[in-house]
Amino acid sequence: MRVELICIGTELLTGKVNTNIAYIGARLNSIGLELSNEITVGDDKKEMEKVFIESFGRADVVIMTGGLGPTFDDLTREIASKVLRRKLIFDKDIMAQIARHFIDRNMEMPKNNESQAYIISGARVITNKTGTAPGQIIEVKSLKFKVKNIVLLPGPPAEINPMFENTVLPYLKSKYEQKIVKSKILHVYGLPESKVDELIKPIVKSENNVFFTILAHLSVIDIKITVSGTDEMLVDETLNKIKTEIYEILKENIFGEDNETLENIIGNLLIKRRKTLAVTESCTGGLLSHRITNIPGSSVYFRAGIVAYSNSEKISILNVDPETIEKYGAVSGETVLEMARGLQVISKADYVLAVSGIAGPGGGTAEKPVGLVYFGLATPTERLVEKMKFLGSRIEIKGKSVNYALDMLRRQLIGTHPI
Amino acid sequence: MRVELICIGTELLTGKVNTNIAYIGARLNSIGLELSNEITVGDDKKEMEKVFIESFGRADVVIMTGGLGPTFDDLTREIASKVLRRKLIFDKDIMAQIARHFIDRNMEMPKNNESQAYIISGARVITNKTGTAPGQIIEVKSLKFKVKNIVLLPGPPAEINPMFENTVLPYLKSKYEQKIVKSKILHVYGLPESKVDELIKPIVKSENNVFFTILAHLSVIDIKITVSGTDEMLVDETLNKIKTEIYEILKENIFGEDNETLENIIGNLLIKRRKTLAVTESCTGGLLSHRITNIPGSSVYFRAGIVAYSNSEKISILNVDPETIEKYGAVSGETVLEMARGLQVISKADYVLAVSGIAGPGGGTAEKPVGLVYFGLATPTERLVEKMKFLGSRIEIKGKSVNYALDMLRRQLIGTHPI
Repeated sequence: MRVELICIGTELLTGKVNTNIAYIGARLNSIGLELSNEITVGDDKKEMEKVFIESFGRADVVIMTGGLGPTFDDLTREIASKVLRRKLIFDKDIMAQIARHFIDRNMEMPKNNESQAYIISGARVITNKTGTAPGQIIEVKSLKFKVKNIVLLPGPPAEINPMFENTVLPYLKSKYEQKIVKSKILHVYGLPESKVDELIKPIVKSENNVFFTILAHLSVIDIKITVSGTDEMLVDETLNKIKTEIYEILKENIFGEDNETLENIIGNLLIKRRKTLAVTESCTGGLLSHRITNIPGSSVYFRAGIVAYSNSEKISILNVDPETIEKYGAVSGETVLEMARGLQVISKADYVLAVSGIAGPGGGTAEKPVGLVYFGLATPTERLVEKMKFLGSRIEIKGKSVNYALDMLRRQLIGTHPI
Repeated sequence: MRVELICIGTELLTGKVNTNIAYIGARLNSIGLELSNEITVGDDKKEMEKVFIESFGRADVVIMTGGLGPTFDDLTREIASKVLRRKLIFDKDIMAQIARHFIDRNMEMPKNNESQAYIISGARVITNKTGTAPGQIIEVKSLKFKVKNIVLLPGPPAEINPMFENTVLPYLKSKYEQKIVKSKILHVYGLPESKVDELIKPIVKSENNVFFTILAHLSVIDIKITVSGTDEMLVDETLNKIKTEIYEILKENIFGEDNETLENIIGNLLIKRRKTLAVTESCTGGLLSHRITNIPGSSVYFRAGIVAYSNSEKISILNVDPETIEKYGAVSGETVLEMARGLQVISKADYVLAVSGIAGPGGGTAEKPVGLVYFGLATPTERLVEKMKFLGSRIEIKGKSVNYALDMLRRQLIGTHPI
């Protein structure tokens, strides 16, 4: 069983990072399929044709991304139809869907978009709810080619992901699933990556048919455990056993699993405890609110966010005492506590997080260097302050500060604060 | 001149994002070379051998990443030596360097690492200062293969990057640089991708040694113009001519070039006009503030951001009239105007942007569906309101709304509002 991936787009060879390979590879693994290879080609007729012919002759399933847009350099439909010797058929329903996409935006549909309504004869259409180009699943019965299924998908990850989850994966699963492969990701906060590695090493070493990876991003460590086998019960058992062992070692440093995030975990905790949250931020500049409100339904517990970027707003909106700022500075434990307390009064939220620091690249001093961040947390019964020093760019310091703030609240909500 | 990239590593086909393709592609472009394709293969002997033979027969230069580690599944050295029929030679100096790497870390060198001291006969060694596996540059003079240079590099970006900058790029530049290649990216907002395509098509069609790509992300359209040639003055002239022609067609819809973003453009405009900004957001939940404050030095013009997520905060903090919300709803032109006006009074900022909408996935109605967003803008002299309907996920609707808001302010600042 051979599955190949072809990624189409000159931008992918000239500086744009392609996340589709990793996504599609991992999702195929979840149904026991593996990518045998991946090939990236530019928007070049000859190159594409050569790669398509070779791949169709070699693989059972060929998945392609990109080249389905409405512009002159989008050639996938045309070249696939040529290589397969199947006609492109104009599909009125798809045309209507694309037209509606523009009507919803009060825009006239450009003539070019008509090209996206052409489907390779006999193909099954994959509806695209987040863009205009539909995907296609083509069944091939050919003496010339080995390939049995070709899947055409657009390039943008936001369009691919729902199409892959809802249509492509169930289709391939029903047709090809053989081995059982299951994964579990554990998300850790509060320990350095090398410490996590050291702590779980005894478990990693004792297991054979198990695959571990550790990845760190903005101080969040992800441990991915993958178990494969033919007996589903045995696979589940092994996965559960390892998971339990890791929980015993890392305890409450594990904040979530799989698709869970710090923001959705604190959301669930707040809902369960029927509590509300407000935040006030300086150096993180709105990212803390943004992350919290990325969670659907966060309006149930999230009251308000105040980005008090200048001292005068800290004073006028949050009622921070000007003397506190004068005496201790805007980046200080005293100020974040007053910010938290001030917003608690205004918003009547049960919990208030306050962040103030120096994101850089400018604004640092010997005493208060770039990366220094204070965190305040007002709860219904107490007020806490913590201080951290982060390394990295402005954007990284914002990201690490937000993760720290969310974890500080999480630990408070589960009652194991401080770290 | 054909350059191919082969990325080796099962992890790249099972979930790990590969940033080396984008990095190497972009860096080659800077010396006038282009990747003709990229192939990812797992750590699999047969697969690697087949791909090596094909690629060596087809390309002038083959760059490989990965498979140089010390473990059993690192096969690049061995297979390249087999395909090229050249011996692997043990290099004492490299062995000493690798040993020192471990001594510096107070660690004993595992026996496995000895494999990393083997070099393909005749290869030039690329020192690796951030890891243990050295790279290799091999010159090939073969009747069997077309390839003239093979470059072996380790997999981790932190190891590749210095080796590529300090050794590989200067080597390839001295040997192959012929053409001068220059690019310009124009960022467009306010027109659909297909309309941009339609408008610039006459220019695209009239040019030969020029390469165009169009990419859209969250309603921002990027036009990339790449010109190559042997005469630098002619390349510059052509690039400038095309740029001017596109500006004549798309006018103020072009908001920036190359690394410029909407948020840094409005930052520059505000600084130039000595004006200040505050924002208040509901459905975008802090992302608007976050984007604005990603710009270093934004504290000069950014006063404050209020994420008024619930009606009571719109009333208590921003002084929105409860009757306005009652009568028109929180998602309405009337409410965003009061939000903008309210914050203008509190913050004394010259410009205030206000956003209120339905980011979904819940909360939509027939009358006010998911994706409906109102934008208010209070300027020193007037108040404006606009209404849009966006498609996509919650995160995409947030992103598109923020781009719309920033562009609304930009057009006001340059005096060409509305679109």
